[in-house]
Amino acid sequence: MRVFIAGIDGYLGWPLALHLAQRKHAVGGADLFLRRKWVAEIGSDSVAPILSMSERLAVFKEHYGEALPFYEGDLTDYAFVEHALRDFQPDTIVHLGEMPSAAYSMIDVRHAVFSQVNNLVSTLNILFAMRAVCAGAHLVKMGTMGEYGTPKIDIPEGFFEIEYRGRRDTLPFPRQGGSWYHCSKVHDSNNVMFACRTWGLASTDVMQGVVFGTQIGMTDTDERLVTRLDVDQCFGTVVNRFSAQAVIGYPVTPFGKGHQRRGFIPLRDSIQCMTLTIENPARPGQYRVFNQFAGVYDVEGLALKVQHVGRELGLSVQIRNVENPRIEKEEHDYRPDHQALIDLGYIPTHDIEAELRFMMIDLMRWRDRIESLKTVFTPDIRWDGGRKEVRFISNPQPC
Amino acid sequence: MRVFIAGIDGYLGWPLALHLAQRKHAVGGADLFLRRKWVAEIGSDSVAPILSMSERLAVFKEHYGEALPFYEGDLTDYAFVEHALRDFQPDTIVHLGEMPSAAYSMIDVRHAVFSQVNNLVSTLNILFAMRAVCAGAHLVKMGTMGEYGTPKIDIPEGFFEIEYRGRRDTLPFPRQGGSWYHCSKVHDSNNVMFACRTWGLASTDVMQGVVFGTQIGMTDTDERLVTRLDVDQCFGTVVNRFSAQAVIGYPVTPFGKGHQRRGFIPLRDSIQCMTLTIENPARPGQYRVFNQFAGVYDVEGLALKVQHVGRELGLSVQIRNVENPRIEKEEHDYRPDHQALIDLGYIPTHDIEAELRFMMIDLMRWRDRIESLKTVFTPDIRWDGGRKEVRFISNPQPC
Repeated sequence: MRVFIAGIDGYLGWPLALHLAQRKHAVGGADLFLRRKWVAEIGSDSVAPILSMSERLAVFKEHYGEALPFYEGDLTDYAFVEHALRDFQPDTIVHLGEMPSAAYSMIDVRHAVFSQVNNLVSTLNILFAMRAVCAGAHLVKMGTMGEYGTPKIDIPEGFFEIEYRGRRDTLPFPRQGGSWYHCSKVHDSNNVMFACRTWGLASTDVMQGVVFGTQIGMTDTDERLVTRLDVDQCFGTVVNRFSAQAVIGYPVTPFGKGHQRRGFIPLRDSIQCMTLTIENPARPGQYRVFNQFAGVYDVEGLALKVQHVGRELGLSVQIRNVENPRIEKEEHDYRPDHQALIDLGYIPTHDIEAELRFMMIDLMRWRDRIESLKTVFTPDIRWDGGRKEVRFISNPQPC
Repeated sequence: MRVFIAGIDGYLGWPLALHLAQRKHAVGGADLFLRRKWVAEIGSDSVAPILSMSERLAVFKEHYGEALPFYEGDLTDYAFVEHALRDFQPDTIVHLGEMPSAAYSMIDVRHAVFSQVNNLVSTLNILFAMRAVCAGAHLVKMGTMGEYGTPKIDIPEGFFEIEYRGRRDTLPFPRQGGSWYHCSKVHDSNNVMFACRTWGLASTDVMQGVVFGTQIGMTDTDERLVTRLDVDQCFGTVVNRFSAQAVIGYPVTPFGKGHQRRGFIPLRDSIQCMTLTIENPARPGQYRVFNQFAGVYDVEGLALKVQHVGRELGLSVQIRNVENPRIEKEEHDYRPDHQALIDLGYIPTHDIEAELRFMMIDLMRWRDRIESLKTVFTPDIRWDGGRKEVRFISNPQPC
């Protein structure tokens, strides 16, 4: 298949490109390197030592023998998007090219507006360009489990059949985003659903859990292939941040009580799931939703797993809860379905502790890079609009 | 109360300002006159002979003795919005300052992106400016009944309590917008709901039916106070378009079968309902949704009412269905609630035929203006992305 990855320079985009090339798909992609700029803007950097895109493209050619068609440009520029898709002629478009951080979107009005406009316009442009030049292609759109919020009922995959006042219908499951970023993904879902219904486009909207990890089973043999790994308050997801903290002896810091429950998925499983989705496309006119995660965990439980794995690796790991900079429920139900990908053949590769071990061994090699960035561990972006570093709210737990 | 109207130059904004001033509220507002420009862009004009804003402000002062604080500027410019709200210090903000046309949003990618960005950013800016300078104010946000689409179950007012797999929750009712414009209103609803939950803002999100009519019971005594009336494919709502067609002997043109059912509300009732909402504000942190319409009708039935009233006024009125340029269900259930405003005291002022008669008498005075615009009656903006004038699909019905 010909797969075009929007956001190919990112945490998910680059390893997906490698994995698809390994499976003999023809891969191309676009990026404007905004992720690198956003992370720099908030004073951080990837702790994994990633190459520039031109270096990445050279290593890609060395491994796979063929050049990867790369388009540098802005997905919010319609002419650029239409040109790239017309030139590449994809069977599948994987849209990973959005601003992915809740905290970044909550900084101030400028960041909120940027986050929503950037995400919404990139998706609109892709939908219009698909209709214009590759209407039969399949759009794999990266959303987030966070679109659903934390309702008191089970969370199905996108749609549910319900009875209300004696009549029945199958309707989109209500969305309740918990940040401007999460709301932007809800907006995208509504737009993509409308385009599929109205124009007959095919799309899979991926409600992904929180991704963590460094490995996809390829980069361990050639470190030049490694994907970025962020550990800051904006772009560092919780398990990656905990693991980096553990590696340098910084306390692992759950927000608030740490009882927030979420779906989590290792990076290599995310790549496996997206590959299954690409190789089993939606039908023309179909808008389907996959909940993409390996399991549900609470944040405190993950901190304990990081501590446990860290000890096995000879690290001394404390857990200290900090004030929650977010406004969110800290005690809640969470029962999301995730059957669709299992039905397509998804099998979690490792248990979570094994995956943590792979990551922490990588992170131990990059210890100096983490040390130089540890000031970014303490969040100060607050959901109430304030900007003030959070404080510890628990004493150190004995190691 | 101090009421700030964003979009005060519009079809609803101007008569709302007059009505609130009559009730001794202090009224201010903002506009950039984009509605006038959009209507000109698609080759049309208000058939009601409206004054410029500077003339309107002079007549306002003549009637009410006080100047209306008017802020000319762009709601997508945060600094402008914050300045206006800080200066005016409203108790209530009525946000009518959005692009209100489904067809306009469907023209092409540029119009789709403009419609969504304009609407979403104006609302984000108002939410952030409220938090910054008038966090205790009440936001009355104009949405549309079209956010709900046409589900097979009853449509409650914003939220419903449901049981799913043996557990219960009260959740936002699923939205299924039928154009990029309708989706923009869904995005706004999600953003406003998030802001109320997270920042404790108070808002009423008004899911309004299709508005029609010229009269609010004041402009008949001084024509200089009249509000705009559009009859083109983009900004002319269906009943207004039918009435204008009838007045000049042009066939009344339902789209497709004409069995689409929608909620409808006369202009004067819309103003009455918004006034009730303003005078009975939401509580801090409350996000409430009102379905605002007088009754549910199908489009064919409304065409027959226009024909009936037209005949009483001595007009010869044909009905001829045209191809439906939209992609929408033409046979569907439609059972929306609309109890909240009735509980606040809303009583429909007239039956629909009486309201049609008031409008058509006004339109007969403006017959020459309508004659000069009749080329705008034939839609060519199609939901499939094409741009081609629709054809008649039925023979003339005998007058």
